[in-house]
Amino acid sequence: MNKPNETKIFVLGGLGEVGKNMYCIMHDDEMIVIDAGVSFPEGELLGIDYVLPDYSFLKLNEAKIKALFITHGHEDHIGAIPFLLQSVHIPAIYAPNQAKELIALKLEDRNIRYDHLYVYNEDTVVKFKHMQIEFFRTTHSIPDSHGILIKTPNGNIVTTGDFKFDLTPIGPMADLYKMAIIGHDGVDLLISDSTNALDEGMSVSESRVDDALTDIFDRYKYNRIIIATFASNIYRLKHIFESCYQHGRKICVFGRSMQNNIDISIKGGYIDHKELLVSAEVANTLKPGEVTILCTGSQGEPLAALSRIADGTHKQIQLRPDDIVIFSSSAIPGNALSISKTINKLYLKGVQVFTNMLYSDLHTSGHAKQEELKLMIRLINPKYLMPFHGDYRMLKRHANLGVECGIPKENTFVLKNGDSLILKNHTIQKGESFPNNDIYVDGNRIGEISGAVLRDRKIMASDGILVVIANIDMQKRELLIKPNITTRGFIMVNENEELLKKIEQQATKTIKLKLADHNSSYTDMKNQIVADLCPYILELTGRRPIILPIILDVHRS
Amino acid sequence: MNKPNETKIFVLGGLGEVGKNMYCIMHDDEMIVIDAGVSFPEGELLGIDYVLPDYSFLKLNEAKIKALFITHGHEDHIGAIPFLLQSVHIPAIYAPNQAKELIALKLEDRNIRYDHLYVYNEDTVVKFKHMQIEFFRTTHSIPDSHGILIKTPNGNIVTTGDFKFDLTPIGPMADLYKMAIIGHDGVDLLISDSTNALDEGMSVSESRVDDALTDIFDRYKYNRIIIATFASNIYRLKHIFESCYQHGRKICVFGRSMQNNIDISIKGGYIDHKELLVSAEVANTLKPGEVTILCTGSQGEPLAALSRIADGTHKQIQLRPDDIVIFSSSAIPGNALSISKTINKLYLKGVQVFTNMLYSDLHTSGHAKQEELKLMIRLINPKYLMPFHGDYRMLKRHANLGVECGIPKENTFVLKNGDSLILKNHTIQKGESFPNNDIYVDGNRIGEISGAVLRDRKIMASDGILVVIANIDMQKRELLIKPNITTRGFIMVNENEELLKKIEQQATKTIKLKLADHNSSYTDMKNQIVADLCPYILELTGRRPIILPIILDVHRS
Repeated sequence: MNKPNETKIFVLGGLGEVGKNMYCIMHDDEMIVIDAGVSFPEGELLGIDYVLPDYSFLKLNEAKIKALFITHGHEDHIGAIPFLLQSVHIPAIYAPNQAKELIALKLEDRNIRYDHLYVYNEDTVVKFKHMQIEFFRTTHSIPDSHGILIKTPNGNIVTTGDFKFDLTPIGPMADLYKMAIIGHDGVDLLISDSTNALDEGMSVSESRVDDALTDIFDRYKYNRIIIATFASNIYRLKHIFESCYQHGRKICVFGRSMQNNIDISIKGGYIDHKELLVSAEVANTLKPGEVTILCTGSQGEPLAALSRIADGTHKQIQLRPDDIVIFSSSAIPGNALSISKTINKLYLKGVQVFTNMLYSDLHTSGHAKQEELKLMIRLINPKYLMPFHGDYRMLKRHANLGVECGIPKENTFVLKNGDSLILKNHTIQKGESFPNNDIYVDGNRIGEISGAVLRDRKIMASDGILVVIANIDMQKRELLIKPNITTRGFIMVNENEELLKKIEQQATKTIKLKLADHNSSYTDMKNQIVADLCPYILELTGRRPIILPIILDVHRS
Repeated sequence: MNKPNETKIFVLGGLGEVGKNMYCIMHDDEMIVIDAGVSFPEGELLGIDYVLPDYSFLKLNEAKIKALFITHGHEDHIGAIPFLLQSVHIPAIYAPNQAKELIALKLEDRNIRYDHLYVYNEDTVVKFKHMQIEFFRTTHSIPDSHGILIKTPNGNIVTTGDFKFDLTPIGPMADLYKMAIIGHDGVDLLISDSTNALDEGMSVSESRVDDALTDIFDRYKYNRIIIATFASNIYRLKHIFESCYQHGRKICVFGRSMQNNIDISIKGGYIDHKELLVSAEVANTLKPGEVTILCTGSQGEPLAALSRIADGTHKQIQLRPDDIVIFSSSAIPGNALSISKTINKLYLKGVQVFTNMLYSDLHTSGHAKQEELKLMIRLINPKYLMPFHGDYRMLKRHANLGVECGIPKENTFVLKNGDSLILKNHTIQKGESFPNNDIYVDGNRIGEISGAVLRDRKIMASDGILVVIANIDMQKRELLIKPNITTRGFIMVNENEELLKKIEQQATKTIKLKLADHNSSYTDMKNQIVADLCPYILELTGRRPIILPIILDVHRS
């Protein structure tokens, strides 16, 4: 899988999805890793907190790893670090300042000690035996976002990280000059952000969002303003602090991720006016026009601060009919319904709600749209293009944009996680694929959740479970008492005694038949119970609960 | 007006208007001129063919002129050259290839011999004693459009020419790299195209227009297609040729400017498939699906080919009800009514009409919108910004975009024609203004048309003229016969004999009074006729015709 003098690019995560970005570049005995993100489970991953990229590949090549490079501090680029460090030896992590602070906080939270977390800036050059790593400033919704140039013996690779071209950014400009120079010096492979590849035109500048927010602050001087936004959009938070400062408002923050980001941004100097922060107790003593509540929950997440405020179940904040609620956010696909529910509850309480649908420019994406993607391609001027960070249709559209910009179709690669590319003497071809599975994190248990568990959770969520407990004497091959049938989420027990009786009788019949067969094992017996009860229950009820047979042998345990 | 060691920028045309671009950069005894365009008269300039920038300033500084540099071959940048060369000595003209060919044709048309017309390309460097001139490729609707870098002892000046950032252009890409390098090396003043400064976002790529045109070609394989577009949009013409080639259609061209541009573009290699061109006679023998008619008249100009076709007065082309007419154009402000009339006539004949309103992407502008203007500012990164090529509101908006991109407000200059800037040691301040008037060209008479003439034309256009001819003997101070009253465009003579009689009587009275006054001259008499008749006629008719008294003295001849 790794011939000498070849440079290989392995994708561990971030393709066919927006989340858990991770890829590796390997040359002989040297490997670097770019980003280590998590993704957040979609609706069907019940009870899963995070999804991690499959770093078994890293474990396998552990000795070669020189460093992990982080493009920026968003969860889908840094979230896997605490888990990764517990399994794989990473000699060094290089991250830009804001990301470094966020990573440090993460490690501290989990009591992970790690002494090799370094800050890079745009002038940093990291040299290894074969590879040399450089950085260029981009614009995104978090400060200190960078693209990375990897110089290898076989050619140059650029990965953009997440970016947009915001020509009137809140923070510093992207370094167009450095990108043009890198492009002019020659880039073989461009790995570029595809999140908004389906959107025509150019993204709205973060400065325009500022104007829209300022407008609302100006209009509602005497109302309490509640703003829900992404905790990760530091520039948005910065602007809200500025607006509150100018309008004489204190700020009360709800939501742990929001609080963390604000703390780190104040520490890093990205957000000023720390003195505006007040506790809920203090906030409740101020006039409405003197307070802004900044909270999580812009996606209608049921447990987030805004949802609890809307429900009236928040311990510290009660809605007032003259409150102004601003969603400075957009709906992440799949969340439209929960957002809509939250908005409805807010309207029911009589408050005025502003969203991006009703009042344009209350949010802008941090990701490049088509014209910006083309501009990146034109600046970097790569021979090959590998779109990353997106669903397949986004990746495909991005590849087409590359073709429109003159990259031969055969030089564009729409890959999936677990694919690889081989770069040899400035020429790239597709390499072998390697095993790659999602790793699910359920609470603190990493990777113990298999697809089967998730399937069970899904079935239980729709049809419930039916447990059959049989006490037997295996030596005598006797059923000691009638099998016990217990259900959860299947039927109302009180109203279905007859049904349960029938199921009990069927189970008894199956168990006795199996006991009579002296060759049958516990497993045979269990399988037969499921095999018999499943169609029987389906016929009686139209449902397919999980059937869980438990055989208790008096002679075991 | 010109202190030693100062560099001055003089604007002769192109501010407060879209047209007749011309400005000069002077350092001590050295002056270069950028562009020499015409503008086309608006409705109120009756009978005027062109408007030229006032090159009396050039005449005054003739000895200093080193060269004229042309950014691209559009009329508003090259149209004044034939007139200029007849009045001012220009030692050399440097133009990119396509512009050079168009200029050569212009000079040939007017029998002007000029031996110092040179072609530059993006690598050309022109050095004078004080100034050095370099070029960078841009994208616009005509091939070979360039921006110009002028290095002076006091700092660097960049003028963009007309441009857009078309990231999927039909021709070569703009040289983003060279722009970034120029910007990085330091630019003091950016002079940038403001035509579309009022438009948000980014302009549509010319490639998208191709797609839209191809779509219509695919759908109407058996219909004759008539396309009206701007003769100056060479890339559009190129695509139409390509589409006709692919769809097996011959092309019949109507309109002299269209024919000229096609000839030059074929000669220069910008347009292929010369063999597709056929005469109207041949076109009329082919099946409808085998012909495309390419013509001028996209602005509804009454004498242009399309208008005559729509009127049914074209000698060679009669409309068929199954014809398809495409306006691959947008309405230049002021032309909406005439375009609408032409479209209505076409509908009356039963043909199907496609315009940019009905079918998006049938046209795109060649000028940068706001995001592109900001990108230019970010790439060139100038200390000062002078928007050019636009009405004042466009210039003002463009200056504001500069401020949004971090240029101090006091470093932006919204000027008018006749203004100047002084560049001294990388610092710019406003200089004195100099006399600057439009020069009108009526037929071949340059500059003979004053504002007064135009005012007269305007009055005559609304109220007509009344000529009073008086035959007198000045020696005897006698009126020989009753004054003759002749009118045009004032009243119907036959129906107003009584009115004319009254005017004649009033005129007689005035003339006799003046003749009786032995001190009064011809001029006094004429003035008095006008002074008396004007209010009298206004009272009688409510009109204010031009009153033209002509005194014929038997002793003068």
